Amino acid sequence: MALPLTPAHRRSVVIAFATVLFVCYFMTIGHEDNYSSFKSLSTQWSASKDTTVVVDVKQSNETPPQLASSSESKPLPSLGNISSYVSSPPRRANATLVMLARNTDLNGVISSVEQLEARFNRKFNYPWVFLNDEPFSTDFKRHVASLSSAVDVSFGLIPRESWVQPDWIDEGKAQEGRNKLAVFRAYRNMCRFNSGFFFNHELLTPYKWYWRVEPDVRYYCDLDYDPFLFMEDRDKVYGFTISMPEWEPTIPSLWSTVKNFVAEHPQYVSPDNSMDFLSDNSGDSYNMCHFWSNFEIADMDFWRSEAYTKFFEYLENTGGFYYERWGDAPVHSIAAALFTRKDQIHFFKDIGYKHAEFAHCPQGKQWREGHCSCDPNDNFDFAQNSCLRHFMRLHD
Amino acid sequence: MALPLTPAHRRSVVIAFATVLFVCYFMTIGHEDNYSSFKSLSTQWSASKDTTVVVDVKQSNETPPQLASSSESKPLPSLGNISSYVSSPPRRANATLVMLARNTDLNGVISSVEQLEARFNRKFNYPWVFLNDEPFSTDFKRHVASLSSAVDVSFGLIPRESWVQPDWIDEGKAQEGRNKLAVFRAYRNMCRFNSGFFFNHELLTPYKWYWRVEPDVRYYCDLDYDPFLFMEDRDKVYGFTISMPEWEPTIPSLWSTVKNFVAEHPQYVSPDNSMDFLSDNSGDSYNMCHFWSNFEIADMDFWRSEAYTKFFEYLENTGGFYYERWGDAPVHSIAAALFTRKDQIHFFKDIGYKHAEFAHCPQGKQWREGHCSCDPNDNFDFAQNSCLRHFMRLHD
Repeated sequence: MALPLTPAHRRSVVIAFATVLFVCYFMTIGHEDNYSSFKSLSTQWSASKDTTVVVDVKQSNETPPQLASSSESKPLPSLGNISSYVSSPPRRANATLVMLARNTDLNGVISSVEQLEARFNRKFNYPWVFLNDEPFSTDFKRHVASLSSAVDVSFGLIPRESWVQPDWIDEGKAQEGRNKLAVFRAYRNMCRFNSGFFFNHELLTPYKWYWRVEPDVRYYCDLDYDPFLFMEDRDKVYGFTISMPEWEPTIPSLWSTVKNFVAEHPQYVSPDNSMDFLSDNSGDSYNMCHFWSNFEIADMDFWRSEAYTKFFEYLENTGGFYYERWGDAPVHSIAAALFTRKDQIHFFKDIGYKHAEFAHCPQGKQWREGHCSCDPNDNFDFAQNSCLRHFMRLHD
Repeated sequence: MALPLTPAHRRSVVIAFATVLFVCYFMTIGHEDNYSSFKSLSTQWSASKDTTVVVDVKQSNETPPQLASSSESKPLPSLGNISSYVSSPPRRANATLVMLARNTDLNGVISSVEQLEARFNRKFNYPWVFLNDEPFSTDFKRHVASLSSAVDVSFGLIPRESWVQPDWIDEGKAQEGRNKLAVFRAYRNMCRFNSGFFFNHELLTPYKWYWRVEPDVRYYCDLDYDPFLFMEDRDKVYGFTISMPEWEPTIPSLWSTVKNFVAEHPQYVSPDNSMDFLSDNSGDSYNMCHFWSNFEIADMDFWRSEAYTKFFEYLENTGGFYYERWGDAPVHSIAAALFTRKDQIHFFKDIGYKHAEFAHCPQGKQWREGHCSCDPNDNFDFAQNSCLRHFMRLHD
């Protein structure tokens, strides 16, 4: 059905066509800009490193964006209202990658960062925070900062008061405990820092979510989605990849302390908790199961909550971090299992990970789609000493 | 200046606005599609692997695209002529990544592929070709194929006639040569295969460009541009990262053979050659300098050219690959240096690479922008034994 074209109709068509060309042209610019802005930021960062190397205890003035903001995309050219149809920056979580490390760990740090950047963060550009109980060397900072395409890479010093053994600890008794287990005091400082302090470090307080990374670990697979947004959208609190039993001599009095705390503060215990992960007899005794905390993707607001704050203080006051050798793994795990709902703890079975000799290697479709480099048979999930079956039975 | 809007004008504006919305909507689909098509291809590939694992001597029916075609983007939804303004698939080279490996090299192969995928090929999705003188195991193929996001990953067998020692070789004399240098016959087979045969393997004949990869090498930096297109656009032939002198006892008669060949076929020698890389006395003697051929980005059409074909045949007929231990590195390097223009050989100084104990680590801005994980001081470029200065003096 051919309609006769009046001059006005013709004008309509010409205007429509011209408008399309005009908008398409600007859309192209917009899309190219997303890419070039990424590069220009990268150049900018490189340039800034030339002069300042990197900043110790670099505190960003920006509040990290909670929802629709992105540090890697600059604004599109002004198109009036049309720009709102064109593109919006990807939604991001208020999250950071965090690693506790020493200058002597440099090679292991490079290895971990290189892998996590390649497999995940190159696409997401989340900031990195590195913490140390001594100042990081210029060499360390230069090497590590250059590895990431993220704009924010910060290096912080841990304040003495959240690291060293408090004065009120009976050193004789602590020494006795150390001799028994043949571990150094520094290790106890680290366990205590990770249990009760890291999330209040000034470089971490701006953030809600974190991914804990350690030197010399392996990340085997691509992660093509944002695990922080995944957790946020599902009201998750704590994510893990490997679980196993703790060595009992390091925590002889931990469970009785936990039971005392719970008796005094029953209001913090979730009605839908994961006690069956921790105990084979409904809480009478601890089965030593814990999430291996060298990998954690979790919500720091949980550690900052009243429940966990009181819990940590209660543990701290017993001196168990120094008289015994309470690890942050059982402390975090017990709190997450008792004070959250069981559906708030997430097993990241699609994240291939190895620390020391223990690996979680995704299986089947996830192994293939993640282009994983691990051997699917090198997988601790259902090894005799794994606690994954205890976690699984909660979700049957 | 406000113009009075007639009904026809109003119609023009409404049509223009509606058209913009309509086109914007389809452009969004187009752009999302580029992403989702990547994923769907990846799924497709994973699915196909479920049933066929991977194909030995898989010969694609498609001619690899020379210019404007892309295996990772499916066609945009039909928009008539408008689609041509919207997006066109990225230009690609007719290129492949290639590795000679054995089943026992699996861990080293995984390591090299994982790095090159992470640092380069995840963005470019060039195919992989793996070659072996024995059939690859199912386990090898399953592991290696899953590492790449490329759609084409092929595993091929090297035909006996391009691998084993030819019958006309005097085995007594060859044995004597092997005893002198304490190397195995298989190593000589490999050197000869890499010198004169790989580019005519049926899995490689569809391609013009290749990037040679070896098990257990390191790729330290991001490569954000396409090195094949880079070479194609600049009429380059051969790219390297590391150069060094050959061990003289492996090639005692190679240079005199080369000189004889050149005397008989002066027409193949480029007037603007790189003799000063090979010789410190204008060709009288060989200084042993060669490009280290475990890394090569080069044009197979050069190896297939009349000049190189005649050259290889000439070398082959002397039996030097078996009576001595001529390596593919000096053979390739001498040919590239003599039969191409000196500006056709490219030093990829932005590609961080390590094989055995020799590394090329990019410096300064390239190190930072490539997010390199190498130590800039671990760099062979101007070490005493490096031949880079011989290359550099050509380009002063």
